[in-house]
Amino acid sequence: MTQPRGRDALRDRARRVFEAAVAAVDPGEVVRRSLAARGQTLVVGQARLPLRRGGRLLALAVGKAAVPMLAAAERILGARLSAGLAVTKRGHGEPLRRSRVLESGHPVPDEAGLSASREVERLLAGLSADDVVLVLVSGGGSALLPAPAEGITLAEKQAVTSLLLASGADIGEMNCVRKHLSRLKGGGLARCAAPARVATVVLSDVVGDPLDVIASGPTVPDPTTFAEALAVLERRAILGRVPAAVRQRLEAGVRGELAETPKAGDPIFAGAVHHLGGTNRVAVAAAARAARKLGFRPLVLTTSVTGEAREVAAVLAAMAREVRQSGQPARPPCCLLSGGEPTVTLRGQGKGGRNQELALAAAFGIEGLAEVVLLSGGTDGNDGPTDAAGALCDGTTLSRARALGLDPRRHLAENDAYPFFEALGDLVITGPTRTNVMDLHVVLVGAERQRAGTRRRKR
Amino acid sequence: MTQPRGRDALRDRARRVFEAAVAAVDPGEVVRRSLAARGQTLVVGQARLPLRRGGRLLALAVGKAAVPMLAAAERILGARLSAGLAVTKRGHGEPLRRSRVLESGHPVPDEAGLSASREVERLLAGLSADDVVLVLVSGGGSALLPAPAEGITLAEKQAVTSLLLASGADIGEMNCVRKHLSRLKGGGLARCAAPARVATVVLSDVVGDPLDVIASGPTVPDPTTFAEALAVLERRAILGRVPAAVRQRLEAGVRGELAETPKAGDPIFAGAVHHLGGTNRVAVAAAARAARKLGFRPLVLTTSVTGEAREVAAVLAAMAREVRQSGQPARPPCCLLSGGEPTVTLRGQGKGGRNQELALAAAFGIEGLAEVVLLSGGTDGNDGPTDAAGALCDGTTLSRARALGLDPRRHLAENDAYPFFEALGDLVITGPTRTNVMDLHVVLVGAERQRAGTRRRKR
Repeated sequence: MTQPRGRDALRDRARRVFEAAVAAVDPGEVVRRSLAARGQTLVVGQARLPLRRGGRLLALAVGKAAVPMLAAAERILGARLSAGLAVTKRGHGEPLRRSRVLESGHPVPDEAGLSASREVERLLAGLSADDVVLVLVSGGGSALLPAPAEGITLAEKQAVTSLLLASGADIGEMNCVRKHLSRLKGGGLARCAAPARVATVVLSDVVGDPLDVIASGPTVPDPTTFAEALAVLERRAILGRVPAAVRQRLEAGVRGELAETPKAGDPIFAGAVHHLGGTNRVAVAAAARAARKLGFRPLVLTTSVTGEAREVAAVLAAMAREVRQSGQPARPPCCLLSGGEPTVTLRGQGKGGRNQELALAAAFGIEGLAEVVLLSGGTDGNDGPTDAAGALCDGTTLSRARALGLDPRRHLAENDAYPFFEALGDLVITGPTRTNVMDLHVVLVGAERQRAGTRRRKR
Repeated sequence: MTQPRGRDALRDRARRVFEAAVAAVDPGEVVRRSLAARGQTLVVGQARLPLRRGGRLLALAVGKAAVPMLAAAERILGARLSAGLAVTKRGHGEPLRRSRVLESGHPVPDEAGLSASREVERLLAGLSADDVVLVLVSGGGSALLPAPAEGITLAEKQAVTSLLLASGADIGEMNCVRKHLSRLKGGGLARCAAPARVATVVLSDVVGDPLDVIASGPTVPDPTTFAEALAVLERRAILGRVPAAVRQRLEAGVRGELAETPKAGDPIFAGAVHHLGGTNRVAVAAAARAARKLGFRPLVLTTSVTGEAREVAAVLAAMAREVRQSGQPARPPCCLLSGGEPTVTLRGQGKGGRNQELALAAAFGIEGLAEVVLLSGGTDGNDGPTDAAGALCDGTTLSRARALGLDPRRHLAENDAYPFFEALGDLVITGPTRTNVMDLHVVLVGAERQRAGTRRRKR
């Protein structure tokens, strides 16, 4: 090909930085970094849990990464593990050496999920204070373990969810209500396991890593109350439309006739350990190390970026321009890194995902810049309904696209980034990674040795 | 008041950082920094122009800051100045010691502007190679000096502008067409002044400081052609609707019957000097120095931020959170700085401006954070149709607002930030500053000594 080597090298390095970040949050890697067994002591993050004689050690993995997480835990725990159970998304199951594997519905909960929840409760029933439960949580855990509270059916719970969504309720309001209609969410799983000690390792797919939100916080104190749940339904003007059993339950809860979700300070959390083993920040830090090894000064901007993908792209591109023009916020060669989960407001009928759209929008902002590459990729390897994790762009993206007869503005307007980057060979394809800590944005700015698009004299 | 001192101090410091930035781009200050006269040598930025015996030194200031720029130049040049002319926005005129001052229409060009353009041409007519013309350019120059090309009326030119705007043409396309319908835009003024040497000092109100765009680049080579101008009208499907004289002129230009706008390499630009004296980057650098003096580690993110104000706010807030959580991209106490010109897509009927809206949106992103203040302000002192330059927010903004009975979401949805911040006492009011290098965003993150909203023990 006639592309200059310098540019290809920079693009290749951006891919390597992204791959290093994804590797650092591989579910098995996360468990290996978070968990160790030394003699009769279990080490979870910074915490040490003595395994008592006669006590059992159970492992429960829930979420889309449940199988690889539990597989790694099995290897670490060896014969110390009394029993294990993984509940994962249909199609994600694989046999494990010492543990049972159950599949259930995601993102829509189903009967298999109800049955899996009962299996979980059975596993945790009747434990003693000598027992330890290792809980491995990853994204999707909430839908995979539906456990409607007594007197509520799954259909009724889902009806409330639909009403909340349609009413414009935010994620905090949704969780507040749903935790009060569930046996396992909002600390319910920890209550089942009591008086056993519970240690949780979390692979976070939520911006900001709030433990009470990830997988609905099954082992985490719930800061919300029945009264607040009822207030949400009133505020969102759907109290009159939720199933009668739901309203009755919440009202009974407010009257103090039902047990509240477990709160901070509850003795069931006395020995509880929570370790954020895999987060966007962990991935970004690995990206920073990889960039440094490749000769780029890393600068982490944020790990909780949200907002419209094309707008995030504009801000990142503005920073890339600033690096080129004034050596700020970092002197090139450098690597600006951010992470999080932007969104896309669909306007067109095209094929793409938020990462590909971000890269396409960024191409406008860095057009013509020499030695600048921006890669946006989802750590799960699936950007929108595509087989790509994301895409990358540089200062020549728009001109190369136009040379191929593509209209970049039209592709952006149509949310149609996939065919655009496919034609350019600039998709980032990793295949499913089995992990998910949201997205990464890698901006590499090389030392400016040449103008973009011109060849070096010496080949 | 019961507000903790720590928070007030931080807010006060944010205001001081902003004020230092605005002071650095005061029009007089910009000219004093850009211009010096030493004996018979004129120093403009890095360039030195010998003033030849018998030659004249003329000063021409155009734009909203024309009067204070020319006033400063008069003081520096003293008796060296042969004649001066300032053309500014109606209401911005003030008498100058040695120069004439003309007012014309802005943003809609008018008859006074046509007359001012003729005055400019008269001033520049018949100059010799021994003469020097100092041109002081600031925002608004394009509208203030309308000079339709021969055979085109002001009304016809404005009709084309309206058609272009309605067709979705971008700023590059607009400028390409308008420069080919004008006597002064796109290097036309430099052609009038030839063979005199022309030195231009620019106060930039355009993102990225493109010299050929600021005030339509009256002294700058035009990279665009008649053929491109015609192609824009075709591409935007308005060629059949523009006034006949316009189409005829462009077609005649394409046939080579009219002189092109002056291009790079044209001898008229041989001794030309262009100095970007006042830019967003200059203001941001001054903000960085002020922050450092106040004990905050400065980090400049970008000086060319664009996009929807509330989305920019989300990204800045995400970075503030990262500073709090991980000490990245800078360790606190630190000051993140960005600049540029976000936009607001109006959805509501409220009162506000893009800076106030950015601050209101940011309040959601930094809610509850201790020792974080974000200030967004327009350097011209006028944010939207309000008497405020902008506003500031911190981790307590939303709770303080709710305590006053304000609904922050409603104010944001209604583009109604002014009354919101007015009630909180958090507007930033500077009065008109007579300068404009767009907006600044100042994020101060203090050392965390206390939780937001709690008082210190010792008073």
